[in-house]
Amino acid sequence: MEFTLLLDPQSSVPCYQQIYAALRQKILTGQLAPRQRLPSTRALAQSLGVARSTVTQSYDQLLSEGYLQTVVGSGTYVGDQLPETLLHAHSTKPVHAESPPPLVLSAYGQRLAELVAGPSPEPSTPISFRYGRPALDQMPLGIWRQLLSRHCRRADWLDYATDPMGYGPLREAIATYLAQARAVQCHPDQILITNGTQQAISLATQLLVSPGDTVALEEPSYLSARRIFASQGANLHPIAVDGEGLDVDTLARLTDSIRLVYVTPSHQFPTGAVLSLPRRLALLAWAQRQGALLLEDDYDSEYRYGGRPIPALQGLGSGQSVLYLGTFSKVLFPALRIGYMVLPLELVKLFSRAKWLADRQVPTLEQAVLADFIAEGHLERHIRRMRSLYDQRRQTMVTALQTHFGPRATILGDKAGLHMMVRFQTTLPDAELIARAEQVGIGLISAAPQYLGKSPGHEFIFSFTELNEGAIANGIARLATLVSSSLQP
Amino acid sequence: MEFTLLLDPQSSVPCYQQIYAALRQKILTGQLAPRQRLPSTRALAQSLGVARSTVTQSYDQLLSEGYLQTVVGSGTYVGDQLPETLLHAHSTKPVHAESPPPLVLSAYGQRLAELVAGPSPEPSTPISFRYGRPALDQMPLGIWRQLLSRHCRRADWLDYATDPMGYGPLREAIATYLAQARAVQCHPDQILITNGTQQAISLATQLLVSPGDTVALEEPSYLSARRIFASQGANLHPIAVDGEGLDVDTLARLTDSIRLVYVTPSHQFPTGAVLSLPRRLALLAWAQRQGALLLEDDYDSEYRYGGRPIPALQGLGSGQSVLYLGTFSKVLFPALRIGYMVLPLELVKLFSRAKWLADRQVPTLEQAVLADFIAEGHLERHIRRMRSLYDQRRQTMVTALQTHFGPRATILGDKAGLHMMVRFQTTLPDAELIARAEQVGIGLISAAPQYLGKSPGHEFIFSFTELNEGAIANGIARLATLVSSSLQP
Repeated sequence: MEFTLLLDPQSSVPCYQQIYAALRQKILTGQLAPRQRLPSTRALAQSLGVARSTVTQSYDQLLSEGYLQTVVGSGTYVGDQLPETLLHAHSTKPVHAESPPPLVLSAYGQRLAELVAGPSPEPSTPISFRYGRPALDQMPLGIWRQLLSRHCRRADWLDYATDPMGYGPLREAIATYLAQARAVQCHPDQILITNGTQQAISLATQLLVSPGDTVALEEPSYLSARRIFASQGANLHPIAVDGEGLDVDTLARLTDSIRLVYVTPSHQFPTGAVLSLPRRLALLAWAQRQGALLLEDDYDSEYRYGGRPIPALQGLGSGQSVLYLGTFSKVLFPALRIGYMVLPLELVKLFSRAKWLADRQVPTLEQAVLADFIAEGHLERHIRRMRSLYDQRRQTMVTALQTHFGPRATILGDKAGLHMMVRFQTTLPDAELIARAEQVGIGLISAAPQYLGKSPGHEFIFSFTELNEGAIANGIARLATLVSSSLQP
Repeated sequence: MEFTLLLDPQSSVPCYQQIYAALRQKILTGQLAPRQRLPSTRALAQSLGVARSTVTQSYDQLLSEGYLQTVVGSGTYVGDQLPETLLHAHSTKPVHAESPPPLVLSAYGQRLAELVAGPSPEPSTPISFRYGRPALDQMPLGIWRQLLSRHCRRADWLDYATDPMGYGPLREAIATYLAQARAVQCHPDQILITNGTQQAISLATQLLVSPGDTVALEEPSYLSARRIFASQGANLHPIAVDGEGLDVDTLARLTDSIRLVYVTPSHQFPTGAVLSLPRRLALLAWAQRQGALLLEDDYDSEYRYGGRPIPALQGLGSGQSVLYLGTFSKVLFPALRIGYMVLPLELVKLFSRAKWLADRQVPTLEQAVLADFIAEGHLERHIRRMRSLYDQRRQTMVTALQTHFGPRATILGDKAGLHMMVRFQTTLPDAELIARAEQVGIGLISAAPQYLGKSPGHEFIFSFTELNEGAIANGIARLATLVSSSLQP
């Protein structure tokens, strides 16, 4: 029997492993047949120029895994339990590779394959008005690092959590914060810590919406939420939004049975409208009558420029109809992946089970750090500091838009949050405007994808959190020059 | 009009907020009716003994939120847009609180409510053989802390990830590790970073198994996996396990169409059997013929005592039929919540979308730390150190069991992983044995819940990772004394 084992003495893989891998490959591809006799360890060691113990180690491994067997007094053989017909199906180029059986997906998997695109890459531009991030360079990472270090000096947080709802001190800190800052009525027991708002919406949809059920949502509305509803097979019912937010009358006149309403009352996404008090009360009363649930996404309510933040919808009702969602992605940083839900009491147990099955719990260390960050006042200070910074940037943006566009730019929803929406009077289609802006180094985000139906067009989402005032003024001025020729008179 | 606003001067809540909250409450409960006139700011300030500007601030807030309105030259009134009939529904004790509309859950929510209990609290005992954790006190937290600090000195990881599949350097480190240590065939592009194995199984089930589809699984098998399959509405088909692992012949004779097989080939959970090579090859060939997918959970394969770890099932096949799952919960610590899947190429895009919809991404910081921890050799050193420590503890446990129980204890699957399974010859029911053990300070875990059907009984899962050798010997000795009277002769 001829052995052509190629060993690479330069490799970091030890010799015995190289021999092991080569023999195993020969057995699997059928180059070594079942019951075929192998050379003695001494002979193979000689032919390869290695120590006999090296070959013995390789053989032992193959023996322990069933590739080889020994016959006492006779030698070492390829295992005879290997079904011969199978071995050839596992050559390095699999026999069936050209015609794999068709892949069968679940109903959910099929919807996902058809419906949902992944994140689309954003062009990198010197000045970007892209939406979604706070001023990441302002994050007090020194404090964060100290808190991480403090917890890493102990080892009491390494085990599985005893409660899938989340780390106790964090839930207490959030409950206190929400009561004070958002007038949310809640006990820490009602708070579920999630991997961001995205997981909160996903869990709520899984638990409350069967395929074919109807979900109502603002039009326009947050695209990522819509994608979750659609992927779960929900029928989507868009409800128009005006200056007072969701048109509750239209919702109340619907004859369909609505399971869930997704709503952003504090700062409608993306138009920035604030849901008026009469509509809030009407929405709550309607939900209670219908047995519908309201998913209140309070994504950037920490920031309101002038006056206190508006109290949450959740705090106005009995607490039974509203699932309140919040996130630290917009006040701290998105890579943290910590958000929370305030649940009606009767849903707590069910969501706890669902979270446990989904991924057990949110990682503990950063929950503990965040709990300290809130309890020690760092969050409040950071929000206060950012509110002032964002307010300056916001005013700069408004002034620049007014100066350069005048009446041909309508600014919406700039009194709160991290963005404003701007309607341009222009004949340019959105895609054309975006392409031209990109050519001169400006990143623009159209509001059109946030519409389920046809977008009126010419609406753009402008973030004012990440750029300094100079860049904002410069970017708006360049944009004005760029599109002025195409603006309607 | 009589005002009975109670202010608490000791409160940390500023006066203007107290006034705001009290007035708002009166409006919502109907104590202040729509169009009712409010006292002037001067009059109210006098009656409350506060500065006029304080009251003005409260009124301004209520005005901006639509609770109040001003009539020029006439004064301030409760808003008349508030539908009177609704206001009374929002008294502090909601009218409908006694008869809330019935809560409607999705089909998934209903199954979850019926099927799955949450984690059951484990009794705290001085000596616990409970399963599931590595030796947490051995985690090199000093190194972990240094790596955290290093990344916290930069701010380049705070944003959303560009790829939902996970942090690039971590996926590269895992691919290298898996190729060397587990003979897994994979490119970093095929690796999805998940929040532990739990999320990997959840995503796979959501995407591949529709309600009514059949999932085959080892009997006994990992309870948490079974709960996911059941909650998604799968029919469960248990397949017996013997000393060579899953009985593939029985699987191949099934006439049902099987969508997914959940299998633990390296160290069957909980029996510890190693799936033999002939069965591995037969299983792969069967899966390829049937178009079934294999979910290979390689949960504790890093630890094998004597010989190299056995190569993964995934590396034996064409890579099209196996979804390979691994976790850092058992080699590092569970609260990290980082696991991974190696996906067939054609499933990569779909899983990426599903992860993105589920929760966008795994938190970045600890992914970056873990990538460094692996790349700088700390993981390998830690595993090597733990392998030696666990081996000693394992041998202590085996010796103690043999010494104190002799033939009346059968030890299974102790050559790998973090636990062994022990069958006692005893007349005591499991619950009785567990209760008696608990009374003398010993925590025991029965294997019975891991069976879908009836358990043969008297099987227990013994972890040997967390207790030192003294505690192991002591615990086994006490257990022997306790149950010796009830052991069968």
